[in-house]
Formats: sequence, structure tokens, C-alpha cells
Amino acid sequence: MSNDLMQDVVLSSRVRIARNLPDVPFPHAMNDAQAQEIVYNVLNALKQQDQAFSFHPMVSEPPLERQSMVEKHWISPELADNPQKSALLISADETTSVMLHEEDHLRVQCILPGFQGSEALKRATELVKVLEGQMQFAYQEPIGYLTCCPTNVGTGLRVSFMVHLPALALTGDLQKTLDDIRPQGMTIRGIYGEGSSAQGHIYQISNQVTLGVTEEECLQIVETVIREIANREQSARKKMEQEGGYSFQDRLMRAVGTLRYARRISSKEATSLLSLAWLAADMGYWNGLEDGEFYELLISVQPATLSCLKKNQPNEAERDVFRAEYLRDTLKDHA
Amino acid sequence: MSNDLMQDVVLSSRVRIARNLPDVPFPHAMNDAQAQEIVYNVLNALKQQDQAFSFHPMVSEPPLERQSMVEKHWISPELADNPQKSALLISADETTSVMLHEEDHLRVQCILPGFQGSEALKRATELVKVLEGQMQFAYQEPIGYLTCCPTNVGTGLRVSFMVHLPALALTGDLQKTLDDIRPQGMTIRGIYGEGSSAQGHIYQISNQVTLGVTEEECLQIVETVIREIANREQSARKKMEQEGGYSFQDRLMRAVGTLRYARRISSKEATSLLSLAWLAADMGYWNGLEDGEFYELLISVQPATLSCLKKNQPNEAERDVFRAEYLRDTLKDHA
Repeated sequence: MSNDLMQDVVLSSRVRIARNLPDVPFPHAMNDAQAQEIVYNVLNALKQQDQAFSFHPMVSEPPLERQSMVEKHWISPELADNPQKSALLISADETTSVMLHEEDHLRVQCILPGFQGSEALKRATELVKVLEGQMQFAYQEPIGYLTCCPTNVGTGLRVSFMVHLPALALTGDLQKTLDDIRPQGMTIRGIYGEGSSAQGHIYQISNQVTLGVTEEECLQIVETVIREIANREQSARKKMEQEGGYSFQDRLMRAVGTLRYARRISSKEATSLLSLAWLAADMGYWNGLEDGEFYELLISVQPATLSCLKKNQPNEAERDVFRAEYLRDTLKDHA
Repeated sequence: MSNDLMQDVVLSSRVRIARNLPDVPFPHAMNDAQAQEIVYNVLNALKQQDQAFSFHPMVSEPPLERQSMVEKHWISPELADNPQKSALLISADETTSVMLHEEDHLRVQCILPGFQGSEALKRATELVKVLEGQMQFAYQEPIGYLTCCPTNVGTGLRVSFMVHLPALALTGDLQKTLDDIRPQGMTIRGIYGEGSSAQGHIYQISNQVTLGVTEEECLQIVETVIREIANREQSARKKMEQEGGYSFQDRLMRAVGTLRYARRISSKEATSLLSLAWLAADMGYWNGLEDGEFYELLISVQPATLSCLKKNQPNEAERDVFRAEYLRDTLKDHA
């Protein structure tokens, strides 16, 4: 499949590497002094980096900001909910980060737009190496790196891709596709962790296995699955266009009309309409946003991220009105 | 109420005067020679007019054209269904017409946009006078003019106003309003004759009584009722805005979005969305069409009138696609 067609389906590539310090209890059991020492060492190590990292101790972030970080996939919901000892360090370009004291002491992460697994793995690995200059990680032959949860032991690596599968959902072939890839060692979640009826037909596909495979092998296995899924999605799009004709186009374009004219809209409705409008743009029915811009907009209209855009904290009803306004404004040059 | 506010609610004013010739059976019973003689006399009389009238014998009009004339309210469905002896004469500006051999020998009609009952009555009366120069009408003291159906005996006058009552429908106060005016001697029908769930919230309100009142009295009675209805509709609009707020605006503007983006649309859906979009324009939420243009568009998207706009006769599915295209094109400068 051409690179362009892959970019239509694959929204982002994420690599996450879990590491822990030897002889220090895991975060749920460690004391404040132990937590602070690790933070101190990590901060020191990152000073060596060319790129500046901003430091966000979770206790000093308001709940709304923490929630917005979850919506942006910078931190996990668990980190947001347990801010006492935890922190986030994130690079100026917002692609590379270190979560401190979630389940593991360190979780190094790189998220890049589109289908860029190798580059994400490269950057995350480099960052881990920088940290290794300052500290030693718990490692045991022949298992590999030790982690809090046994599912991460070995490489500590989780490779995930965010994929947009609206046509498979519309043709009803989505469930079969997801069932087909599960036995290949994949975990499937919605964009915000929910089940198979994911918001906006967006799914996170990631590896389950971290033991007995190298990092490169793991990436290759997941990428093969992603290519297969993207192929099926593209076939479903062609099928919808051929068989659905005007009815298909009508469904997608009405979503555009609603996004451009609604005066109040919930995040759930906005997410699912954006998914259809996005497909309309991919199909060439509409001069919409670029793929990356769509994904960004989809995250911007989530409750906490949207609220952070507004000075005075809006209640839910005001937020629905502001969301509609924000959508109209963002899409105003895309008739 | 200001004239502008009346124009928001009152779409058109129609006056129809029924006349018959003495000593000639009513149309259902007359022979071809009798029918032709009346047509001949009417054509002769209209030659005296400044304004040119075009002559449409119904037998020579294709069914689709006849159906379109019904949609435009130029002729009745009964005339379209019984084309053998019947004909339409219509003025160049399409406001004044004579239906020949429907239920009565002659039905003189004037339709004007907005709230213009007096002017419509004046023009119809003048046309009747022109015809009286050429023929004598059946008249009997103390009853008045004789007609086929007893409900028209007397003045033979029917005054009707087409009113747009979306807010009364949305607030649920419509039924009460209609129930209140029925005892005042009014007949209420939908825009195309249907019952209380009229398409596009458009109703024809007309007088029932033709006996024992003069033409001017009759007009006054109906106009008083129309002013009352327009008042209630305007109050309902204010109430919706005050109480519904963004939810009201949202509902109306989503209709605009659908009209501007749908790729196929039925006449029924188009009619009801146009009604809401029109209200959105009246409320100032949207830079929509003028009241008269909305009404015209609403008629243009009816099945037969729309089909007449397209060279090759479309089937229903093609017509739904063409209707959506026509709506997008008409509304393209009204973002």
C-alpha cells in the first residue's frame, strides 16, 4: 500500500519502554525520598539532552490539566488519578516523554504522527540510553528487564498504532477484523481505552508479548498486522463507494454539515461526526483538513482539553456550545 | 404587528372566485360543445386585457407539467386528474389565472406573495368584471352567485392565506391554535391539502362561509384570524428563543447544515428542513434567503416541479440526488 493510503488509516505510532531501578520498591510501595531521588537522577540525565524537557510534577497540575494530558495520551489515566509521587517530563516538540512513578519507575514514550514505528522506536531507545548514562536499570538474564506487571517483563516494550477504521465499522466487517488479529498477539482498545465500540472508530492496536522477542522483531510483528488492517480498511472504503454510491457519500457529507452548523455538540457526537467527516475528506468528497489536523481536532474537542482552551472553566452545557463554536471556527475555510 | 413580522409568517394570499354560466350544465355533466363555447368566450374576453394570458388546455399538458401546476397551486388536483374538458389561463406574471371546467365553469384566482389579501381581491374582482363584459353569470336573488357545490354559493369567494407556523409546531401549541380558529368559520389544510401534520409546517387557512357576507367582510374576517395566528407564531418564536436558547438555535442550524451538505434528500425531508432553515433566517441566526425565495424553493423541490427542471425525466432515486444538488446550488452563497 502507498504511504499516503497508510497515512489515511494510521493516525499515530507510539513506542513505550518500561524501566525500573534495582533495589528500590515499585512506585506503589516506595517512600517519598526514594521517589525524589529517581526524579532527581532523571532530571539530571535529561539536562545532557539537546532538546529541552519540561517538568510537570503531577501534584502541581490541576485535575483538568492532568485530564487533558490523558486525552493527549501523554500520561495514563492511572498517573492522573495518583498524582502524589508521579511526574511527567516532556520534550519541547511534545513527541518524547518520560512518565515517572506510574506502575513502573520510568516509562519512556515517543508518539509520532502517522505510520512511523521505526522512528518512534529509535527516539525512545535513544532516550533510554541517555538515562542509562545516569542510572542502572533492573535487568536479569535470561529474562531481560524487570517490570512491575509481568506482562511487560523482557523488553518492557509496548508498540501501539492508533488506526481509524470507519469503513470497516460501516460495512460491519470490523468485528471480524479485530477477531482475526487478536490471536496474532495483539491487544485492541478504543482511542480512550474503551471496548469495541470505540469513539470515532479509532483503535489502538499493540503487542501483548514482551518476552522472547527483540525490540525490532516486536515492531515488525505489529507493523505487519497494521498493514493488513490498513489494507482491509482501504478495501472497505472502495466497497462502500462502489456499492453505497450516493447513500454513502450522503451519510459522510451530512456529518460535515452538522459539524459546520451545530450550535451545541457533545464530545461523543463530535468524535463520531469527525470520524465520518475525516473519511469524507480521505474519499475526496470534501476539501477537509489534513489527516494529522483531524486527529488533533478530535483530541481538542475532548472535554478536558477543550476546557483548557477556555479561560473561565465552563460547565458541561457551556462546553457543548463552545465545542460547536470551536468546530465551526476550525472548519470555517473548509466548505 | 409590523408588516415585516407579518411577512415572516404569511407566505401568500390567495383569492378565488367561482362563477358559472346559466342554462349550461355544470362541468361534470356538460358536453364538449358547451365546454368549448365557454372557453372561446373567456379567451375572447381576456384579449381585451392589457396583460397577456397564456392558454393551457389540460389535455395537451403532460402529466408531470399538470402535477407541477398543482404543486404551484395554479390548478387543483381535481383539474389535473380530469384533463378532458378543462384548461388554465394564466397571466404573464403568473399571479392571476382562470381555471376552466373544474367543479365550476370558471374559477378566477389571484395569488400574491406575502400578506396582500386586499390587492388579491381587487385583481380577481377586476378580472371577473372583464369576463362579465363577455358573458353573464348565474345569479339568483337573494342567494347570490350559484355554484356547483353549495359551500360556494353566495359570493363564490374563497380567501386563503398560506402561513408558516414552525414555532407553534415546535412548542406544541399548534393544535390548540388550529382548534381555536376552526369555530371562527375557518378551514385549515396543509400546504398540499393534507391534515394537521402538514409538510414544512405550512397551513392554508380559508373562509368556510360564502353566504350572507360581502366580499370585503369575508376578507376582513379571515385577515383578523391571520393576524391573530401570526401574533401567536411570533410569540412562540420569542418563547422558543428565550427558553430553548442554544438548543433551539442548534436544531434550526443543523437543518441548514443538512440542506447545504446532503447528497440525496426526499421532498418530504427537504420540505421540513427548509421550514426550519427558514425559521433560522427569520430569527436572524443565518443569512438565508428572503421569505419569498424560501417559499419558491420549497415549491421547486416538490417532485413534479423539480422533475420539470431536469431535461431527462429522473426516477425517484435520481431525483433525490438532483434535489440535494439543487438545494446546495441555491444555498451556496448563504453560509
